[in-house]
Amino acid sequence: MGGKAVVLLSGGMDSATTLVIAKKEGFEIYALSFDYGQRNSLEIEKAEKIAVFFGARDHLVIPVHLKKIGGSSLTSEGMSLPRGRDLREIGKEIPSTYVPARNTIFLSYALAWAEVLGAGDIFIGVNAIDCSGYPDTRPEYIHAFEQMANLATKAGVEGNLKFKIRIPLINLSKAEIIKKGVELGVDYSLTHSCYDPFPNGMACGECDSCRLRLKGFEEAGFNDPISYKEIR
Amino acid sequence: MGGKAVVLLSGGMDSATTLVIAKKEGFEIYALSFDYGQRNSLEIEKAEKIAVFFGARDHLVIPVHLKKIGGSSLTSEGMSLPRGRDLREIGKEIPSTYVPARNTIFLSYALAWAEVLGAGDIFIGVNAIDCSGYPDTRPEYIHAFEQMANLATKAGVEGNLKFKIRIPLINLSKAEIIKKGVELGVDYSLTHSCYDPFPNGMACGECDSCRLRLKGFEEAGFNDPISYKEIR
Repeated sequence: MGGKAVVLLSGGMDSATTLVIAKKEGFEIYALSFDYGQRNSLEIEKAEKIAVFFGARDHLVIPVHLKKIGGSSLTSEGMSLPRGRDLREIGKEIPSTYVPARNTIFLSYALAWAEVLGAGDIFIGVNAIDCSGYPDTRPEYIHAFEQMANLATKAGVEGNLKFKIRIPLINLSKAEIIKKGVELGVDYSLTHSCYDPFPNGMACGECDSCRLRLKGFEEAGFNDPISYKEIR
Repeated sequence: MGGKAVVLLSGGMDSATTLVIAKKEGFEIYALSFDYGQRNSLEIEKAEKIAVFFGARDHLVIPVHLKKIGGSSLTSEGMSLPRGRDLREIGKEIPSTYVPARNTIFLSYALAWAEVLGAGDIFIGVNAIDCSGYPDTRPEYIHAFEQMANLATKAGVEGNLKFKIRIPLINLSKAEIIKKGVELGVDYSLTHSCYDPFPNGMACGECDSCRLRLKGFEEAGFNDPISYKEIR
């Protein structure tokens, strides 16, 4: 293996684990993050640290103006985040934290950068097990994006690159992701998952993302190294 | 017909004509433009005027940071634009003005906005006849994007909307586009096609885009109402 890979890096645990998997496969890492007016702007800081820590060759942070479009409780002040939901409820319906076409926008920028770099592999840390039920984390969506990507680009059409959207976490539970990450040396204290952290950076422990993370650490048998508002 | 439609509006003649076609079909128009650091920032001003002139319900201009990614003579100062090319050469090979994944990024934002608005129809003025030979203006690409769009979104997956990427100009020559536009009341003095206009706004007349436009007007038998550096 080897060559260059673009890795979408949100600063969360899934993307950090994905980055390390790509590195382990021998890729030279080009990390790509987005500043999209998310409530959790701490994500960007975390992403910077992860990119440096794991020796990414370059790290681009692109402002994406999703607030102008709205339609999600992650980007709109007026919409409230679901909190304290039963874990069995999470993933059943698409929640208000869904950001319309977010992964499509992110993957499109990744595709642009990959083409300029000459990188055929684009890694994204989506997973279909312990997830929020977003449509744009499912394998059939990723497959359709990949098909489109190879028709959209000069490199794809001329056959210089075959774009592959790599989803190494797709069939792993949160606990399995954490176990794999720990094995590969991911320091999860560098990551952050909370949708709406407190001003001091502490995670809320109540949003869907915190709940899935906490459940994952519990099942994996590790302590989550980050700080939560309330100890549970 | 009717309902809402998102129309990609660059300020060029193709997108202006597309907007009017969508309006004629009875759609309420939501125009979407991008400020991507293109050499021709005049495009945005033109787009504003066109949106107002044709009574768009809303017009969003989204900054898209393609300069950070580079790889095109349209966005990189260091690359030179092709000029004065023989018309028979244009479209044979993908030229340096190709912007990696540009239409994919643009359509992704359009998809996000369309989902928030509840608009199933997204119009884009690509054409496959008198064009520059970009991969992301071909019908097979558009079709693949449409497939992906319906898997990417909550509205698509839940069946509330079926997204359609509408390409009314796909099989028209530039001359046919102009004839159609004139018939529908497009004022082409509001549009601008030059990749690299002079500071006073005059078109260069030499870039591929100017050459295709001039050829179109000549074949359609109309005078092009905009000003060129040199009369030819």
